[in-house]
Amino acid sequence: VPTPFGNPAAGVSPPARAQRADAATNRARILGAADEVFGEGGPAASTEEVARRAGVGIATVFRHFPAKADLLDEVLARRFERLRERAGELAGAAEPGPALFGMFTEMVSDAPGKIAIADALVDAGGDTGDSSRVAQAAGELQQAVGVLLARAQAAGAVRADVELPELYALLAGMSRAAAHGPRDPAVWGRALGVVFDGLRGPG
Amino acid sequence: VPTPFGNPAAGVSPPARAQRADAATNRARILGAADEVFGEGGPAASTEEVARRAGVGIATVFRHFPAKADLLDEVLARRFERLRERAGELAGAAEPGPALFGMFTEMVSDAPGKIAIADALVDAGGDTGDSSRVAQAAGELQQAVGVLLARAQAAGAVRADVELPELYALLAGMSRAAAHGPRDPAVWGRALGVVFDGLRGPG
Repeated sequence: VPTPFGNPAAGVSPPARAQRADAATNRARILGAADEVFGEGGPAASTEEVARRAGVGIATVFRHFPAKADLLDEVLARRFERLRERAGELAGAAEPGPALFGMFTEMVSDAPGKIAIADALVDAGGDTGDSSRVAQAAGELQQAVGVLLARAQAAGAVRADVELPELYALLAGMSRAAAHGPRDPAVWGRALGVVFDGLRGPG
Repeated sequence: VPTPFGNPAAGVSPPARAQRADAATNRARILGAADEVFGEGGPAASTEEVARRAGVGIATVFRHFPAKADLLDEVLARRFERLRERAGELAGAAEPGPALFGMFTEMVSDAPGKIAIADALVDAGGDTGDSSRVAQAAGELQQAVGVLLARAQAAGAVRADVELPELYALLAGMSRAAAHGPRDPAVWGRALGVVFDGLRGPG
């Protein structure tokens, strides 16, 4: 509700304001802890461990997120949103080719945690359908990556006949492979290098 | 036990020989059915469905494969062995570049079923450790693919600085992605085309 003073907290008594600030801090800590805990443990990780790592009681977690799926939905959507923001930053880069390849590399690095959280969300009965918040955030990321691709192509850094669906198939492939077991980072670097050479095109 | 006649079945009475031939036929039918059933259904598929599709009783399945893991172990190892045979055939091809890329494409096409069977094997408590039959068969396939890579490089069809680990990382990536949800085959064709261009090398 807007107030005559333009500050939504202006009509709130100081103790209530402090309580609200505490609640926001707790919520942020819970989300940060959940990102780590489910990113590492996937469906096997527990909300209790999230509470422990956030330094709050389990009741506080449930007050903010009544169901495990609510928490995971928020965590996963935020992952996509962070990546979309990163893509937005890179859309202003002076060199569109390295910007696209940098984004690709970041998305693959992010993938093991993201896939673990997505598996936990599915396991918790969360909504991942086409109209879910997660699907919407994923769609917005894909659009932002499409902008990077178009810029890289306009700059002649990526072959003109590559389209977003195959770029995403390559991203999904490298992401899924990265999520399955640790591997030598040097091997990954060379594998990505092959993909990027392919994207640059023959000759 | 070798016989003086050089034919192991020579000392066996005709009815016993017929019985043995029946058993071999049943075993082959069970393996063929299991390859399909677990390749489609993964851990959710049942041995009962295998028996039904093979046209034998469930007791016959258990006589040949006392545990579900025994059956899955055999099915998965045979998948790797078939691919290794295919690689062996392609090692004699006149054009080593297309031979390697053809093998890569076949392995990615084979991947969804293979991953489903591997998931079922793990779910059934099967052995997939380094000294397991499956791991051995997978290792032999990798060696055979290494031969195709070396031939393609010797022919100048693939850049000289690509090594087997990154080729396998690319294979694993495209295979895992192919296993997750159906996609437009045209998109897959273009994604693989990007990888192959990258393997050919810049210019």
